[in-house]
Amino acid sequence: MLYRRGFLACVFAVGCSASALAQPADPLASWNDGAVKKSIADFVARVTTQGGAEFVPPAERIATFDNDGCLWAEQPVYFQVQFAFDRVRALAPQHPEWKTQQPFKAVLDRDVKALAASGQKGVLQIIAATHAGMTTEEFARTVQDWLATARHPRFNRPYNEMIYRPMVELLGYLRTNGFKTFIVSGGGVEFMRVWAEKAYGIPPEQVIGSSGIVKFRAGQDGKPELIKEAKIEFIDDGPGKPVGINRFIGRRPVLAFGNSDGDQQMLQYTAAGSGARLMGIVHHTDSEREWAYDRRSQVGKLDKALDEGRAKGWTIVDMKRDWNKVFAFQ
Amino acid sequence: MLYRRGFLACVFAVGCSASALAQPADPLASWNDGAVKKSIADFVARVTTQGGAEFVPPAERIATFDNDGCLWAEQPVYFQVQFAFDRVRALAPQHPEWKTQQPFKAVLDRDVKALAASGQKGVLQIIAATHAGMTTEEFARTVQDWLATARHPRFNRPYNEMIYRPMVELLGYLRTNGFKTFIVSGGGVEFMRVWAEKAYGIPPEQVIGSSGIVKFRAGQDGKPELIKEAKIEFIDDGPGKPVGINRFIGRRPVLAFGNSDGDQQMLQYTAAGSGARLMGIVHHTDSEREWAYDRRSQVGKLDKALDEGRAKGWTIVDMKRDWNKVFAFQ
Repeated sequence: MLYRRGFLACVFAVGCSASALAQPADPLASWNDGAVKKSIADFVARVTTQGGAEFVPPAERIATFDNDGCLWAEQPVYFQVQFAFDRVRALAPQHPEWKTQQPFKAVLDRDVKALAASGQKGVLQIIAATHAGMTTEEFARTVQDWLATARHPRFNRPYNEMIYRPMVELLGYLRTNGFKTFIVSGGGVEFMRVWAEKAYGIPPEQVIGSSGIVKFRAGQDGKPELIKEAKIEFIDDGPGKPVGINRFIGRRPVLAFGNSDGDQQMLQYTAAGSGARLMGIVHHTDSEREWAYDRRSQVGKLDKALDEGRAKGWTIVDMKRDWNKVFAFQ
Repeated sequence: MLYRRGFLACVFAVGCSASALAQPADPLASWNDGAVKKSIADFVARVTTQGGAEFVPPAERIATFDNDGCLWAEQPVYFQVQFAFDRVRALAPQHPEWKTQQPFKAVLDRDVKALAASGQKGVLQIIAATHAGMTTEEFARTVQDWLATARHPRFNRPYNEMIYRPMVELLGYLRTNGFKTFIVSGGGVEFMRVWAEKAYGIPPEQVIGSSGIVKFRAGQDGKPELIKEAKIEFIDDGPGKPVGINRFIGRRPVLAFGNSDGDQQMLQYTAAGSGARLMGIVHHTDSEREWAYDRRSQVGKLDKALDEGRAKGWTIVDMKRDWNKVFAFQ
């Protein structure tokens, strides 16, 4: 009776919209129906049902996501590496010596072989030249400027449009259900924080990543500044991921998503907690809409974690089968 | 007219409570009226007024608070030091060698002079013995057990009741107004996270502090564990505070509260942002209800920051004058 009164009041009232009578929109519309979508919805229902055996209080609904290859693409090369190369090219006019100096010469000549030969030392030199020797705010501006102009070589889109529509839906769906969503990525934390809030709705304080040493100094006019130094402080990858989760969150996730062997320890750590858990892996199986790669890939290698996930019944997303849309622009 | 209808409907309706007609409760009831309370309320009004010149979007309403001497007491000695000493005493039966070995002998004999003589090396040995060589979960349990049994020597209360009622009100008032509240303390992050949520409503992921190295390892039954090592990773004090804020939050606070020279750089960093700011200092001036100390104190020394705060018009809380209640139990 109450329902009918409400219904009639709505039909006849001013301002009643058609949408109020329609089916609620599917919060996971880009996910195809099937076992994977069902496992996500079932998990969320179990942990959010008040009085249920597997209920998890909102404060403990911690969900962690890898970024590269999990929330946005990572081919043909991690986007932050592309950023570093583009910065080397942009800074080259101020560094004529780079024309003959490795690893910079290799970047300028697009010489992949010479670049690989420069090894770890070369990587650190490129990081020092592109990610250090400036304030944190100056660095953030270079990332912003790059995003505004750089385009992905295959899709000709700004890199921050190379984000997976289904994963953005999943983040929103979890937040609607009281989860707090975090990025836990091997990528640079100060690189990601510039655009993660707009792309994913994840604020800077919920982005965890690798970092370099930052030093406080009294700047000009006595205005204190934070300077980025060319020294690695923390690598948030592999066993570093549970360590980073402990350091930054201090609580074990109940849900974690990754896509590579670098996420294996985060998924193990999540699985080892008590109560309901969801461990997810995005498996890149769609060479047409995105890429297909796993065990033999240079970027985002997925081998041991795939075996463990299959053996233990983790939720393995087959991109081709489970997603009806990959990028919003497609 | 609408108001009067609402009023009459309320007066005559079933279930209308007296409180609905009363004045709303003062969210800062433990603060005396005066310039300090007014400066807080004015600041909050300015940054939350939509369309106002100083409006700050909710996502940017970051508020950071020191803990020792700012949110809870720190006399006669930092409570975490008391915890470490109590742990040494609790562990002593398993370490007969401590009866003759410094700095442990000094702790067991309550020999302040010998303890001071053991210096930095002694401190690190005590940390190693009481804060390392166990999983993060085992450590959290020792903190919980200690809180349940230890009592403050002067007030004979559990240490987590030694929290300042006016500051708890301030935290709540800020959150009601869309602020996100963080602890940024020189204290150990894993020590504070155990009890901060219940004491202050601040969840673990919003607690920033000093930390030791933590290592990931595959534990027994293949269950991964995080082991606390006896090596300092980060000191979140002095210039470490803005560095910690950048690392963990990635956004400059608009409000910061401290009480000692260890907070000076956090306050400077907060002050150096653009737009409305509030920098607060809790000045311990009440030897009856709490303690009176500043420039010459061994614990929570407040000297340079007090001068800077006075010179720059920061909000200096005079505990005796500005608080009508210090601890909830008083």
